[in-house]
Amino acid sequence: MPEVRVEEAQRFMEESLLAGGAPLSEAKAHADLLLHADIVGHYSHGMNRLELYINDMKSGVCNPHAEQIILKETAATAWVDGCDGLGATVGNFCMDLAIKKAKEFGVGWVAVKRCNHNGMAGYWALKAEKEGLIGMSFTNSAPIMVPTRSKQRACGTNPISLAAPATGGDSIVVDLATTTAAMGKVEMQVRKGEPLPEGWALGPDCKPTTDPQLAFETGHLLPLGGFEKTSGYKGYCLSAMVEVLCSGLSGSRATHNVPQWSHTQTEAPNLGQCYVAVDPDCFAPGFGERIADCLQHWRNLEPVDPTLPVLAPGDKEKKNAKITNARGTIMYPQSQLDSAKIFAERIGIRPLEAVKA
Amino acid sequence: MPEVRVEEAQRFMEESLLAGGAPLSEAKAHADLLLHADIVGHYSHGMNRLELYINDMKSGVCNPHAEQIILKETAATAWVDGCDGLGATVGNFCMDLAIKKAKEFGVGWVAVKRCNHNGMAGYWALKAEKEGLIGMSFTNSAPIMVPTRSKQRACGTNPISLAAPATGGDSIVVDLATTTAAMGKVEMQVRKGEPLPEGWALGPDCKPTTDPQLAFETGHLLPLGGFEKTSGYKGYCLSAMVEVLCSGLSGSRATHNVPQWSHTQTEAPNLGQCYVAVDPDCFAPGFGERIADCLQHWRNLEPVDPTLPVLAPGDKEKKNAKITNARGTIMYPQSQLDSAKIFAERIGIRPLEAVKA
Repeated sequence: MPEVRVEEAQRFMEESLLAGGAPLSEAKAHADLLLHADIVGHYSHGMNRLELYINDMKSGVCNPHAEQIILKETAATAWVDGCDGLGATVGNFCMDLAIKKAKEFGVGWVAVKRCNHNGMAGYWALKAEKEGLIGMSFTNSAPIMVPTRSKQRACGTNPISLAAPATGGDSIVVDLATTTAAMGKVEMQVRKGEPLPEGWALGPDCKPTTDPQLAFETGHLLPLGGFEKTSGYKGYCLSAMVEVLCSGLSGSRATHNVPQWSHTQTEAPNLGQCYVAVDPDCFAPGFGERIADCLQHWRNLEPVDPTLPVLAPGDKEKKNAKITNARGTIMYPQSQLDSAKIFAERIGIRPLEAVKA
Repeated sequence: MPEVRVEEAQRFMEESLLAGGAPLSEAKAHADLLLHADIVGHYSHGMNRLELYINDMKSGVCNPHAEQIILKETAATAWVDGCDGLGATVGNFCMDLAIKKAKEFGVGWVAVKRCNHNGMAGYWALKAEKEGLIGMSFTNSAPIMVPTRSKQRACGTNPISLAAPATGGDSIVVDLATTTAAMGKVEMQVRKGEPLPEGWALGPDCKPTTDPQLAFETGHLLPLGGFEKTSGYKGYCLSAMVEVLCSGLSGSRATHNVPQWSHTQTEAPNLGQCYVAVDPDCFAPGFGERIADCLQHWRNLEPVDPTLPVLAPGDKEKKNAKITNARGTIMYPQSQLDSAKIFAERIGIRPLEAVKA
């Protein structure tokens, strides 16, 4: 697979965002958000989505110059208007605010309306973790999950994330969509020409399908847990929980009213997001040691297959980041480089340069 | 199935708890917690567990006279020592504290160590919901979940619950174990003589089993999502997230050090719990209307099977409660009534009276 130097990927994303109309600070911030996803191996949330963000700025759906407004505030809470800013702009504003409140009052709880897509949920939780806090972030999204027993999609992948610091620079990072699999994973099965496991998706007839192309075209994902007999309603309930914290608190659109994200978007999505920070120092001493003890215990569990060690939450992404950083390059599929070439011409920036073809 | 009047079940549980050594107020509070589970149809967490609680008091593992201590406090947070009190005693103390803080400062976040089992997680979330707040509760537990790729169990069912008020007296209630199914459901399959769905449990050879008796004896439950290919690691991650909020913040035992709950328990479990309340009035106006709109949207989705309508989170329990309250009786299996008879003789209280045999 072609490789692109990390700095070159960053340069390309920053220049694209600048060309799209973002101020330098916000172009840099948003490129960092997307680059993080590519570095930790969640390619669906990285450069893969760059063009969608640029189109949103070009069409006016996203206003990269918007300044966020605190509409209501208490010691521990804030209600914010994201004013349709870039995902990273709104995310930084809100998580910085949550961190500030957590450091002063133990907890910072921020709900924000009029948001655009904010990339990997875990990126925001990690922002608080780097400050020695527990970070959590949630967002609603467009309807793609079919609730248990339903023929129609109505809920979002609505991710849940939490990051917490452990001693020795270690951490636990939870970041998951409340569907069994994200649509990006279905796309990967299409590319690989492999069937889906049962419990990922429904076909147009509302029956389970293992055909990745059919699942991709239908866009009816099952909640985490799959079917009712394997507790799929729990994934649906988790998505609903995120809805309460996002559109419920912020007054944004509910998921069932959010338009699908597309290259021809004309309407601001008005997503709802929720950013939470909690200071472990307000509770029992030794938090970092206890988290480290759990991480060690889980990593040392005897694996079923000795070649597949038990991972702690976040280990896969840490391992991917280590490999990427050691290699100094990100591997993108050729199809993505082809798209990037056309895209660079369209917006008039220097094309993305691969080191190996 | 034999039926017992609701008031009689309540009388029996209160008298049992009094005979076990609980003061009247705490006997009433704990009976209310267990009765709630039976009324909403979660029989595993109701009278089914009464004897375990009484044994814990008799053996000294639980001290029903314990008064809880606030060890550290900020405007929005508190770290509490549960002092091995009864589940309901500690739950009421902590959720009352979280509610008070939420009403004053927008959020109340309470982590507590040295806890006993606190019944249905949703009961505590609902306590805040009745005050017009979002309630959340989490607890760790004994190891019963086998993390993805592991041969050994290490994590707990560690439930997640959230309740939020909607207009018209309606609500959304999420209350779920982070395993695919709770052990109580495996027991039910044993009683019914029916196989387990794939993805619930492993046998002693660490391979999937559909044999309910084998699964019950082995006690190796799979995380929500089941196997790795259907994202079982997400259920494991959710259990880990609850661990951070419970043992991480409170300094209680981590799940992997918690003894299994049994009739011969000699050691206090020192569970960790977390109670959170958030005041929606600190955020966008119209919270109750937005939650009501989501509930209505989900309930009105076209079902695959017209005889099985789409439910909103918490609807099943509301429906069960309505049926129970209209009938005025709770249905218990004969085996449970037989146990209750022997138990009543042992502790010297009036036996449980059934209205229909």
